[in-house]
Amino acid sequence: MTTATRLQVAPERIASAARRVMGRCEELARVTASPGSITRVYLSPEHARVNRLAAEWMRELGMTTRQDAAGNQVGRLAPAGVPDAPALLLGSHLDTVPDAGRFDGIVGVLMALEVVRLVRRVDDEGAASSPFPFALEVIAFSDEEGTRFGKALLGSSAVAGEWDESWWDLTDADGYTLREAFREFGLDPGRIGEAARRPEQLVGYLEAHIEQGPELHRSGQALAAVSSIASARRFQLVVEGEARHAGGTPYDMRRDALLGASEAALAVERICRGEHHIIGTVGQLEAFPGAVNVVPGEAHFSLDLRGEFDTTRDHTWDEISHELDAIMGRRGLRWTAREVHSAPAVFCAPLLQDVVRAGIGGDAPTLFSRAGHDAMSIGAITEVGMLFLRNPDGISHHPDEAVTTADVAAGLRAFAEAVLHLGAEPR
Amino acid sequence: MTTATRLQVAPERIASAARRVMGRCEELARVTASPGSITRVYLSPEHARVNRLAAEWMRELGMTTRQDAAGNQVGRLAPAGVPDAPALLLGSHLDTVPDAGRFDGIVGVLMALEVVRLVRRVDDEGAASSPFPFALEVIAFSDEEGTRFGKALLGSSAVAGEWDESWWDLTDADGYTLREAFREFGLDPGRIGEAARRPEQLVGYLEAHIEQGPELHRSGQALAAVSSIASARRFQLVVEGEARHAGGTPYDMRRDALLGASEAALAVERICRGEHHIIGTVGQLEAFPGAVNVVPGEAHFSLDLRGEFDTTRDHTWDEISHELDAIMGRRGLRWTAREVHSAPAVFCAPLLQDVVRAGIGGDAPTLFSRAGHDAMSIGAITEVGMLFLRNPDGISHHPDEAVTTADVAAGLRAFAEAVLHLGAEPR
Repeated sequence: MTTATRLQVAPERIASAARRVMGRCEELARVTASPGSITRVYLSPEHARVNRLAAEWMRELGMTTRQDAAGNQVGRLAPAGVPDAPALLLGSHLDTVPDAGRFDGIVGVLMALEVVRLVRRVDDEGAASSPFPFALEVIAFSDEEGTRFGKALLGSSAVAGEWDESWWDLTDADGYTLREAFREFGLDPGRIGEAARRPEQLVGYLEAHIEQGPELHRSGQALAAVSSIASARRFQLVVEGEARHAGGTPYDMRRDALLGASEAALAVERICRGEHHIIGTVGQLEAFPGAVNVVPGEAHFSLDLRGEFDTTRDHTWDEISHELDAIMGRRGLRWTAREVHSAPAVFCAPLLQDVVRAGIGGDAPTLFSRAGHDAMSIGAITEVGMLFLRNPDGISHHPDEAVTTADVAAGLRAFAEAVLHLGAEPR
Repeated sequence: MTTATRLQVAPERIASAARRVMGRCEELARVTASPGSITRVYLSPEHARVNRLAAEWMRELGMTTRQDAAGNQVGRLAPAGVPDAPALLLGSHLDTVPDAGRFDGIVGVLMALEVVRLVRRVDDEGAASSPFPFALEVIAFSDEEGTRFGKALLGSSAVAGEWDESWWDLTDADGYTLREAFREFGLDPGRIGEAARRPEQLVGYLEAHIEQGPELHRSGQALAAVSSIASARRFQLVVEGEARHAGGTPYDMRRDALLGASEAALAVERICRGEHHIIGTVGQLEAFPGAVNVVPGEAHFSLDLRGEFDTTRDHTWDEISHELDAIMGRRGLRWTAREVHSAPAVFCAPLLQDVVRAGIGGDAPTLFSRAGHDAMSIGAITEVGMLFLRNPDGISHHPDEAVTTADVAAGLRAFAEAVLHLGAEPR
């Protein structure tokens, strides 16, 4: 079987699809728990509302829809006469960080819908089907950011069959457990396993996403294929010294935990800057007891470490640990680290990188993603590929997050042609 | 008029007085808002209870008692036949920091009571009077620590007539204003001026206090006279950069406010260590938005700066400001500082230093106090002097805060003899 690998549609149809994506990004932005800004978290009333909207848009394309056992919204378009064909998943997520932008995740879901619109077959009676040997599924993941329960990728982890029973007891800021939130949303925690997809049901996963970094903006290019998603580890660190009266305690008797933590934060920056493709971030830091006139006896801080390869990431952590030993030793402090997250680098499949590059055309750039994505979880059950869209100035997780309609149009053409290339592959 | 300047009492009477001081420290420690630890704040039910206890102990010595318009507890013993004689104030405070020790402030009030017991005259009919040309007053200040409303020395500021009308709107952690707390305690905000004492009503102020530092412990001495109380300034600083996605933002695009604040905290330490008798402490530091995966766009921290002289303190602040300009400039950050407290150095009167040293006897050491004390406020209306007691290991504002019964006994003799010396001064 051979299929055309170029999209045979008028440019105006793509431009119109891009405008619809942008318009729907605005429409979804109005579904928020915080009027005036965008906050939409897992298992909230806003989550239910955007799922209903997405389902409506899926049905409009002739897809059958369901909300899975983890609250992910799924639409499916099978090849004519092959209702059980394995599926190519196209998707991203609809949840947000607090005070979010309008595009992170969202644009990928909406582009997936337009790709289905551009490539689907519609027969004389108006019945839609997949023109490929595989079904097309659009999946809107329910929780990627981890905003509500502190654990990211809950939606895609359920689809990957990697749900951990201990997560049921995670609590949100109001003390609700994940278990309670499931029930309140109308989901049955006992049926979470039904969200899991088996590898044989899938032919792959493709995700379009804004870059969340400045590389495309800097190089003046609209699109890139993704080679891999960063290897990441997260730690919560505690430095212990001794709380003492600020007036009465001379420097030589101080064991100031905050100064130890400050040196540590600067050491993280110095060490990571010296490594290739490693970024370390101390995003949280607090001193205790936190009184203006008391030498801090304790300091807590977080460390987020990302790298292209697990080995360099782990080597960097070893180097940081060694330096923390030295700093804390000099200052008479103790330190401990609790690892709260660890994810190996996920590599995009060579074939899916190839089809994305072919879709982009020309001398398509390839980037590695330091940000995490749903593709990380889905990589456990099928091959994954990603398309990045230029993110002006690299701002994301922020109301100023942006993408242009022209780049979305270019992305839609590339994304659709990547799917066409995949459909043309001998199987 | 001449008076004996040596205390003519059996050593056992002093030892017994010291044991009573220690026993009462334990008794007051049980008056707490937090069972298992000691927390006693301004205008609380615990404040009322310790005032009642102190009043009872004052009356037991034949003193007349009153609670003044700021909630300070005062006892007075006039010379026989001279009810309006000006007063020598002896005192300290009964409020505490959260999770406090048993002695900071408290031991000074209880020692003042025992000094009155040791020096007072009791006639054949059991009527007590001051043996001096001046009255003896014991004052238990109601708020020195500033725990509840964030403003220290409220009690002694009222006595000094330095109440600021803007303080009424200060709020505690529960949102109660100082004005509301006054009323709930049974005090009339409109009468705060009545707490103020006029200079002509006073002959001086003497305060015994634990050192809140390690100098006496290090030199193996029990007692010291105090030369001056530190000059202090406090600032709240804000560093502003830009919050960005931790994964997507390379180092050269980061303006990380937390790293700027960390460098600042280390610069404070480095600069103050290089100055004589200057201590700078960053006791509070927090990063915002405070997410593990977001580069901090803002950091807040406090700076407490203390020195023996206002000039060196101000010079040090200039040097720190200059260094902050350099740090923040390099990192593309902005910084601002709001001065929230400023107190000039308060010098103990030469005469009162002399009588305290004479009371201690021998080669009495003289220290300067980096910690603030009620004497700082009272210095505005009368001459002040202070006696420091050895503080093992210099720990204060902490449950491990300590003083020995033997040092309290030595302190009682010195304190009483200082009063006798003062009584013997030609006026």
